Amino acid sequence: MKSRAAVAFGPNKPLEIVEVDVEPPKAGEVLVRIVATGVCHTDAYTLSGADPEGLFPTILGHEGGGIVEAVGEGVTSVEVGDHVIPLYTAECGECKFCMSGKTNLCGAVRATQGKGVMPDGTSRFSYNGEPLYHYMGTSTFSEYTVLPEVSLAKIPKEAPLDKVCLLGCGVTTGIGAVLNTAKVEEGATVAIFGLGGIGLAAIIGATMAKARRIIAVDINPSKFKIAEELGATDFVNPNDYDKPIQEVIIEMTDGGVDYSFECVGNVKLMRSALECAHKGWGESIIIGVAGAGEEISTRPFQLVTGRVWKGSAFGGVKGRTELPSYVEKAEKGEIPLDVFITHNLKLDEINEAFDLMHEGKSIRTVIHY
Amino acid sequence: MKSRAAVAFGPNKPLEIVEVDVEPPKAGEVLVRIVATGVCHTDAYTLSGADPEGLFPTILGHEGGGIVEAVGEGVTSVEVGDHVIPLYTAECGECKFCMSGKTNLCGAVRATQGKGVMPDGTSRFSYNGEPLYHYMGTSTFSEYTVLPEVSLAKIPKEAPLDKVCLLGCGVTTGIGAVLNTAKVEEGATVAIFGLGGIGLAAIIGATMAKARRIIAVDINPSKFKIAEELGATDFVNPNDYDKPIQEVIIEMTDGGVDYSFECVGNVKLMRSALECAHKGWGESIIIGVAGAGEEISTRPFQLVTGRVWKGSAFGGVKGRTELPSYVEKAEKGEIPLDVFITHNLKLDEINEAFDLMHEGKSIRTVIHY
Repeated sequence: MKSRAAVAFGPNKPLEIVEVDVEPPKAGEVLVRIVATGVCHTDAYTLSGADPEGLFPTILGHEGGGIVEAVGEGVTSVEVGDHVIPLYTAECGECKFCMSGKTNLCGAVRATQGKGVMPDGTSRFSYNGEPLYHYMGTSTFSEYTVLPEVSLAKIPKEAPLDKVCLLGCGVTTGIGAVLNTAKVEEGATVAIFGLGGIGLAAIIGATMAKARRIIAVDINPSKFKIAEELGATDFVNPNDYDKPIQEVIIEMTDGGVDYSFECVGNVKLMRSALECAHKGWGESIIIGVAGAGEEISTRPFQLVTGRVWKGSAFGGVKGRTELPSYVEKAEKGEIPLDVFITHNLKLDEINEAFDLMHEGKSIRTVIHY
Repeated sequence: MKSRAAVAFGPNKPLEIVEVDVEPPKAGEVLVRIVATGVCHTDAYTLSGADPEGLFPTILGHEGGGIVEAVGEGVTSVEVGDHVIPLYTAECGECKFCMSGKTNLCGAVRATQGKGVMPDGTSRFSYNGEPLYHYMGTSTFSEYTVLPEVSLAKIPKEAPLDKVCLLGCGVTTGIGAVLNTAKVEEGATVAIFGLGGIGLAAIIGATMAKARRIIAVDINPSKFKIAEELGATDFVNPNDYDKPIQEVIIEMTDGGVDYSFECVGNVKLMRSALECAHKGWGESIIIGVAGAGEEISTRPFQLVTGRVWKGSAFGGVKGRTELPSYVEKAEKGEIPLDVFITHNLKLDEINEAFDLMHEGKSIRTVIHY
């Protein structure tokens, strides 16, 4: 079938809106009509050409919401008409990872997903007869996309897809890192480094966890207002201080925070986040994605004296079993999604969404098909 | 009073056995007659001059066993004749750290301990009228030493002091890192990097935890025999392989270990230990003490994909409330101490203990007064 899609034909070029060909779903696969999709920094990172695993030509997009249009042989967990959120972290329930109960990093489709193809090793997308790569197993920048059944979270039909699509990546990543990875407890002191979409979501998570003190850190003080609305209690602009920001935070908290979250992808900030954690028990969680080849470092003494360095992907959230509860929380207003949606555009305007992001003017732009 | 002591008059010089003057214990302090003491790598590190916090002249030693000889005003938890193990990690039970329930790093005497003096800011040791620094709050290389009350674990009188003194540092550090810091569970796969005293103790801890597979890693294969006797199941000499040792371990475990322990103090090995931990849940615990200014590093991707980097000091064990149970386990044979004691010497021979250590000929030498 034909589908409108924003195709990335090469690195560092604008996306081109064209009609691509989409093959029907094979066994264990599902055809989804995307209703709306967010545009995330990770899409921009791959599009920039900096992502060493980036493959072109491809259809980007991984923060979508859609409706099942057709199912392949053997698909049982969703049916035509179901509303779904595509998952870049699948959940098969049967692999070593899913069975461990310790992680959301399912191994079922990982190898082929990383190669830009479906589990059978081929693509369902083509343009003028030439195959296009899938992206993160989701490719939500196409009106019609094909995913493995294990990469779909079924959600209630009442949930507005053009809002809950944001739960497909950033918002869930930030909240999940706080609730699942760190397991922040009531009364805790928390520092959030970086007030983009993920950082703001982490503030929501900390508020949900009833953290007593939520320190928002950003070099752009215009972000502090929304951070405060979401529950942040303290605001720190590193540019206001001559000393390292970890020292500032250690002083203002009498020893450091119980939990810190790096939401930028800056390896120097990851070190600051670790080192502002309290001696003896402070935990620092890396959420941001660093550039290719970059490394974190610190003195081992920081760990020997009781700090813990962790990270998480998709907030440690299991897509099929846990994500529906996030959608429910959003519907009840416990997870405010509207604050993230600063812009709404049509697919034809998708390159503007990247411009807005690069200029720091948007939190999230939602693309409507 | 007079006391025989091995004094370090300066860095990188042999200790001198002399008679020093020891002042009586002040309020909250205890005079202890040391019966036996181990000689640990940390003593050698400070003696070498490489320790930036090393102060001279000083009386080293932190792995002792002794008998209370006199108590200062207000001391209630021990009395004359009690058998004790000096603690370089105090436990006051009242500070922010002790009250947290999350760490053994008591803050009560830390500041002055680090400066080589008692909590009132002065030393109890002098030689020819000149003060000598205390070391790690313990100074067990003096027959008589003075400690804060909060730095003494009271133990049963039946326990042989010339063996259980080893629970004052290395053995507890290794076992505690496995049981307290990592909380290794039955059936887990574990890798131990470095088979010195702490590494061998970590193997004992892993055996106590009923780990299914215990991989012992050392470039000296002569250590593998004793590692096997203590419960190690696999033996890896990094010199036998061309590829990074983390890759070797990932292959032999189908993805990595559940827990790894760095027991050497080598920052490159700390990275290997982290990176051989299983994606999704593997935890790596730093026990070894790295050289001054050295840093650990890795790609943040290692943490974002679910590995956890931790460390611990004194195995996360609270000295006064938990260490007595270690002594009991040693008495029951659950913690075999004899395997660690490769040499017994008199105080006059203490410099030989350092030579044996530097030559890699000893695990622990116990000094008998």
